[in-house]
Amino acid sequence: MAAYGANKGETVELIPGGTLITATPEEGRALAMLMARKSIGAIQPDAEVRKSLRPEYSTSADSLTGAAHVVAIEFATVAAANKYWRK
Amino acid sequence: MAAYGANKGETVELIPGGTLITATPEEGRALAMLMARKSIGAIQPDAEVRKSLRPEYSTSADSLTGAAHVVAIEFATVAAANKYWRK
Amino acid sequence: MAAYGANKGETVELIPGGTLITATPEEGRALAMLMARKSIGAIQPDAEVRKSLRPEYSTSADSLTGAAHVVAIEFATVAAANKYWRK
Amino acid sequence: MAAYGANKGETVELIPGGTLITATPEEGRALAMLMARKSIGAIQPDAEVRKSLRPEYSTSADSLTGAAHVVAIEFATVAAANKYWRK
Amino acid sequence: MAAYGANKGETVELIPGGTLITATPEEGRALAMLMARKSIGAIQPDAEVRKSLRPEYSTSADSLTGAAHVVAIEFATVAAANKYWRK
Amino acid sequence: MAAYGANKGETVELIPGGTLITATPEEGRALAMLMARKSIGAIQPDAEVRKSLRPEYSTSADSLTGAAHVVAIEFATVAAANKYWRK
Repeated sequence: MAAYGANKGETVELIPGGTLITATPEEGRALAMLMARKSIGAIQPDAEVRKSLRPEYSTSADSLTGAAHVVAIEFATVAAANKYWRK
Repeated sequence: MAAYGANKGETVELIPGGTLITATPEEGRALAMLMARKSIGAIQPDAEVRKSLRPEYSTSADSLTGAAHVVAIEFATVAAANKYWRK
Repeated sequence: MAAYGANKGETVELIPGGTLITATPEEGRALAMLMARKSIGAIQPDAEVRKSLRPEYSTSADSLTGAAHVVAIEFATVAAANKYWRK
Repeated sequence: MAAYGANKGETVELIPGGTLITATPEEGRALAMLMARKSIGAIQPDAEVRKSLRPEYSTSADSLTGAAHVVAIEFATVAAANKYWRK
Repeated sequence: MAAYGANKGETVELIPGGTLITATPEEGRALAMLMARKSIGAIQPDAEVRKSLRPEYSTSADSLTGAAHVVAIEFATVAAANKYWRK
Repeated sequence: MAAYGANKGETVELIPGGTLITATPEEGRALAMLMARKSIGAIQPDAEVRKSLRPEYSTSADSLTGAAHVVAIEFATVAAANKYWRK
């Protein structure tokens, strides 16, 4: 199934590792961040364009909050998948 | 049931494949992206208009974050439907 | 119970069909879109005003993303109601 | 417990009827709209001020989408409380 | 554990009463509003600054909607904690 | 797994303490705030830049609401992990 905005014949890995299951909350959080990043990579596949946006959003509190918001939502899914790493 | 904003007599497929169940997280993520895209296609059915919007939103960090946000929410639903692809 | 912003004596149907249960994910998605639309219709009951807003929001990527966001949230509820149409 | 922003000695009813349980999805949706409205009433208790804001937000697509967004979230809670009115 | 943005040696109570359990939905809603308020108090501990922001946000429909949005999310958690006060 | 935006060879702790389980709701709330903060630290690792943003966002009601919004979402996850600290 072709990813949103990806060029034909190119495959974008959307879920690094291919699973939502991680050993620890720390790894789950890192996965959540990567998932958000891969979404953006699928919508804007040009790495140069993405790089050019960084100076602005990384120095805007509201843009950073917006990015943290997406990470929080992705993490909610990853955490539920892992039953919150309860022992 | 007619889709939001679709022209009469036209049918828009909102859930490609007609199911939320996928074999893998990767496919589930691709479905989440397509679902978001189909929503927008149902609200703005004119492909030319949608295409014209791409240069601006695909070069705006906040617009990309907003799109990634929607994907994250769609994915939460797809992931729950698939019981997180736990084995 | 009077709907938010509706005129007195006027009844607005907020959940078309009166149930969250649908036969398929496709119908569930269409319901989610209608629910979002009915919310807006209850808050702004004047169809002419709503129509006048369309040219602007339907040609703004961020407005379309915002609308798709609401649809995603409504759909999460409809999908849960239907236990994700698992078989 | 005093409500957020309410004047001393004044009680604001935040959950009309005092329960999340409703007979139908339609009533649940109306409750979700009222809950959102009561939140805003608790934060801005001056009805005249709230009224003065209406012309602007009710003619802005993005403001209406924002309001519909809140209703969707409130409804998710009400629907879960009612186990989605499944029979 | 020190709260986000709080001054050293100062303790900010983030969950008034120290529990998410309340007797009624009304009290649960009031708690949700307080939780949102306490978050903001932890991020901006200066009460004078917070007070100075009130005239603007309390007369902006979009700011009020944004605040109601946060309350809706906090309430979803409180309501789940209380199993929706079902009897 | 490298964190989003972190420099090579540098490790950023995303979940302080490495667990979502806390003794009390109060500690869970503090963890939610730290998680949001660590996300932002991972995206913008330069502490001086983050510090420079504080005067603006901490005196903007909408920025504070946006931050409180993220905290509310993180807390929903932490609270679910802890089964809401029900006794």
